[in-house]
Amino acid sequence: MPVWLGDAGGPEQLAPENIAIALSTSLYFAEHEKTARHMLRRMSPTIDLPSLEIHRMDKDTDEQDVQRYMSLLRTRDGVMLSEAGMPAIADPGARLVAAAHRAGLRVVPLSGPSSLLLALAASGLNGQHFTFHGYLPVKPDERKQAIKRLEHEAQRTGAAQLFIETPYRNDAMLAELLRTCQDRTLLCIAMDLMQPTAFVRTRTAHEWRQMHTELGKHPAVFILGARP
Amino acid sequence: MPVWLGDAGGPEQLAPENIAIALSTSLYFAEHEKTARHMLRRMSPTIDLPSLEIHRMDKDTDEQDVQRYMSLLRTRDGVMLSEAGMPAIADPGARLVAAAHRAGLRVVPLSGPSSLLLALAASGLNGQHFTFHGYLPVKPDERKQAIKRLEHEAQRTGAAQLFIETPYRNDAMLAELLRTCQDRTLLCIAMDLMQPTAFVRTRTAHEWRQMHTELGKHPAVFILGARP
Repeated sequence: MPVWLGDAGGPEQLAPENIAIALSTSLYFAEHEKTARHMLRRMSPTIDLPSLEIHRMDKDTDEQDVQRYMSLLRTRDGVMLSEAGMPAIADPGARLVAAAHRAGLRVVPLSGPSSLLLALAASGLNGQHFTFHGYLPVKPDERKQAIKRLEHEAQRTGAAQLFIETPYRNDAMLAELLRTCQDRTLLCIAMDLMQPTAFVRTRTAHEWRQMHTELGKHPAVFILGARP
Repeated sequence: MPVWLGDAGGPEQLAPENIAIALSTSLYFAEHEKTARHMLRRMSPTIDLPSLEIHRMDKDTDEQDVQRYMSLLRTRDGVMLSEAGMPAIADPGARLVAAAHRAGLRVVPLSGPSSLLLALAASGLNGQHFTFHGYLPVKPDERKQAIKRLEHEAQRTGAAQLFIETPYRNDAMLAELLRTCQDRTLLCIAMDLMQPTAFVRTRTAHEWRQMHTELGKHPAVFILGARP
């Protein structure tokens, strides 16, 4: 189940139907038990937390534990909670889902916030054809090459090119984008989505260069696009 | 603003906060006025429909109308309603959003169902790196080539490859996928998402071939992936 984004979010940003489904079981999978408990209590202030079973599912969870989770799920419905946004999208939960398919279990997705799709919908860039690349390389040379490759791909195919960055590197990423990209290339930056400080701005690289923007350390999605 | 998927959906599948925002204005943009009115009435049974301004925004809307919409939006907030799922993702609304950015207007995305992200989250395939291709070519030869290209791309990069098909061609698409794909290639089919008949199934091409599945004419998302 997807969860609200950031500290300013809350259960009023989720669909009541999904909250009801999330609370209809006592079996949960999450990256961090503590935040999962906190989120469940916000969804239902009277929830009996000690009666819940919350299992850790993160990148270090070994295959044996995943198989143990499968045997639990053979007899009971379980809910996977994300830390923020959609689970199993840029999130270690995908391994649990893949194992569920191999075990022949039914998987039901629940809708909710996804910073990638929110950014793309609000960017005005190509929603008919797009690629999400996760994180670009950190080393300056490789990062520059990656940006050039994405820009070329946007020009060649028209597809929007999405990527994310660790918040403390936002301004270094923006500087590199503005050093590297051609004047006409479109760059969208979507920051602090679903927070009071949210902004989504799509401008040409040329326009961004004249704006001298400082992003600061906020969660951000970057999108490169070509003018149609 | 995103809207529920399919006939079985409804406002209980949207976040109360988003419904409140959607109802806080009287200026709307939508592909079809009639379905927009229907959805707004479902969000608020007592809404005064005659007092609302609903403007058509579809693929045939000309640039002059888009500019007229911009002048309305300079003095009032407007809400763009989709027909189903996220607006401006595989939907003509992106042009209105792009024009808003060029006009320097503020664009705020609202979260909600997106069949693409729901399918990907529930597929167990690679959510860290994926491409959405829209529709593949209709001509059999070109379609076969496109499938081969996507399969190769999934194997080369590990990225999940998403596409959609017109419902009445689902079974022809599945047949072509099963004729073309290698045994080990993973294929996820996500159908009728958020409907009582929903299913999401990820299997190898080899396994699908043995299942003799008939999809029928339902909205579906197809995803090709490589085994990690």
